[in-house]
Amino acid sequence: MVAAGAKCRTCRGPAIIDLPRHNANFCAEHLQELCRRQVVKAIHDFDMIQPDDRILVAVSGGKDSLAVWDLLIDLGYHADGLYVGLGIGEYSEVSAQCARAFATARGLQLREVSLPDDYHFDVPTAAVATRRVPCSACGLSKRHLFDTAATAGGYDVLVTGHNLDDEAAVLFGNTLRWDIDYLARQAPVLPARAGMPRKVKPLVRLTERETAAWCIVRGIDYLVEECPMAAGNKHLAYKAALNAIEAGSPGSKASFYLNFLDNMAPLLAGHRADDVASVGSCTRCGSPTTGDVCAFCRLVDTASAHAPVPVELVRNRGRRHR
Amino acid sequence: MVAAGAKCRTCRGPAIIDLPRHNANFCAEHLQELCRRQVVKAIHDFDMIQPDDRILVAVSGGKDSLAVWDLLIDLGYHADGLYVGLGIGEYSEVSAQCARAFATARGLQLREVSLPDDYHFDVPTAAVATRRVPCSACGLSKRHLFDTAATAGGYDVLVTGHNLDDEAAVLFGNTLRWDIDYLARQAPVLPARAGMPRKVKPLVRLTERETAAWCIVRGIDYLVEECPMAAGNKHLAYKAALNAIEAGSPGSKASFYLNFLDNMAPLLAGHRADDVASVGSCTRCGSPTTGDVCAFCRLVDTASAHAPVPVELVRNRGRRHR
Repeated sequence: MVAAGAKCRTCRGPAIIDLPRHNANFCAEHLQELCRRQVVKAIHDFDMIQPDDRILVAVSGGKDSLAVWDLLIDLGYHADGLYVGLGIGEYSEVSAQCARAFATARGLQLREVSLPDDYHFDVPTAAVATRRVPCSACGLSKRHLFDTAATAGGYDVLVTGHNLDDEAAVLFGNTLRWDIDYLARQAPVLPARAGMPRKVKPLVRLTERETAAWCIVRGIDYLVEECPMAAGNKHLAYKAALNAIEAGSPGSKASFYLNFLDNMAPLLAGHRADDVASVGSCTRCGSPTTGDVCAFCRLVDTASAHAPVPVELVRNRGRRHR
Repeated sequence: MVAAGAKCRTCRGPAIIDLPRHNANFCAEHLQELCRRQVVKAIHDFDMIQPDDRILVAVSGGKDSLAVWDLLIDLGYHADGLYVGLGIGEYSEVSAQCARAFATARGLQLREVSLPDDYHFDVPTAAVATRRVPCSACGLSKRHLFDTAATAGGYDVLVTGHNLDDEAAVLFGNTLRWDIDYLARQAPVLPARAGMPRKVKPLVRLTERETAAWCIVRGIDYLVEECPMAAGNKHLAYKAALNAIEAGSPGSKASFYLNFLDNMAPLLAGHRADDVASVGSCTRCGSPTTGDVCAFCRLVDTASAHAPVPVELVRNRGRRHR
């Protein structure tokens, strides 16, 4: 990770990590300082959190969501966690253990929702039942359950652990298609709407290597494995392409994402397809929807009626289709 | 290049090339048909060439510039060629031979300008004298000499061989920085201005693999080697990243470039820094410039005063600096 004898840029003590995009090495203490500073700057620059906000952190048990929860607590915020059980076999079991252990050790409140227990389906079954990629049913379910839990719990803001690599990869995908509506929506803050809390991403100035390092130096036990359902998805190909560019020109990934926000996002304001005016309420659950019944309630109907599908089957399907 | 037994999509005869982005294989005849159709479509869609235009093709001796010249002649246009000698050792010697042989065999007129003979410097020496990358002095010289030759010869339009890979890579570089002014200028047609002909790129709908295949099936002898000065430049890294994306999702490169022109370019109209109003004439050569003496005349002064630098020296410098 770092050359033998490398020194921390701040204190000249032994470094534990090199960060080529900062052209510097850091010790554990000053790596944490850098992470805190980047999160404070993101929260400030993008006006993410107000002093009296009630904060809910969407926690997967992976490095990013545990890092952002830890950072917010470390910075003095009060924040509860929300874990959504997706029923992805052992992957979900271990991720739940990581989230619960983190909360218990710190005396934090972790709310839990479970697709299998509360809605009688899981992500692998939903993928087969809907004949879509697993990430589609998973994302739809999480968005719905995050919104519902935040609204029911009276939270003002929902925090997610999306990091710079995530946001740059999504931006790259939208840019490859020049999908103006998607580009216009890509922001580190999405304002609150009826039935939806404000959504903020305080880690957008930190790479996934930096959030992993935060967890390691803080002794946070997180789920290291990637989701087995995600193998072969385009998001990972976009990350790989950007990593190749970053390796040749350190800092490219940050300037790609942050220059977009500075230079291009203002030009796209006003180009978002306005879908707010036509939103009504789901006749079943009351969530915002453009139809009678919302997409999540329709997914519950389809997926809970299907015979359970083991994780391995979907995983193999994914590989065969690559 | 193509699976054994693969058949041409058009005639079901034996195929010589597979084109995954078209999800098809083609024989030599129908590959040519596809290339002609794409060039006709580009010329038509972007209004590149008018019936009475006098056409000058910038010819390097590589596959793209010889392919575009050949395609224009094949499509019934009258077009002369322009070769600029850059003094890059054996690379330039072979490229000149390819350009001359092509013109002679077809009875076409090839104009020639030479940096060493006419301006007493070459690209390697200019790179060292200006302490910039070789591509910088080379691009500046070519733009100036193309404009000057076209204007002096009374040509209406200058054609270059930039292909889809070239344009997508430049777009990717500008997008990585979100350089709005550069993005706003990126177009397959640049209108004429005082001292500059209209500039058009009829190959923007063809990949470099397709232009190479055109040359091969047409028996055109072209310089295969990349310029030795270009090793390690960012343009090649951008091409590699896009090729990795294209391999996973055929058609991505074309949709990246063409969707930019369709979806984004209209939003950027009006965001070009307006540098036309302040342009005067160079007191030495009369070319458009914002200063007293144009950048090319200043380059001539600096580079022709410097002791000649062998190609190998600059080539090694480039590699050391990667």
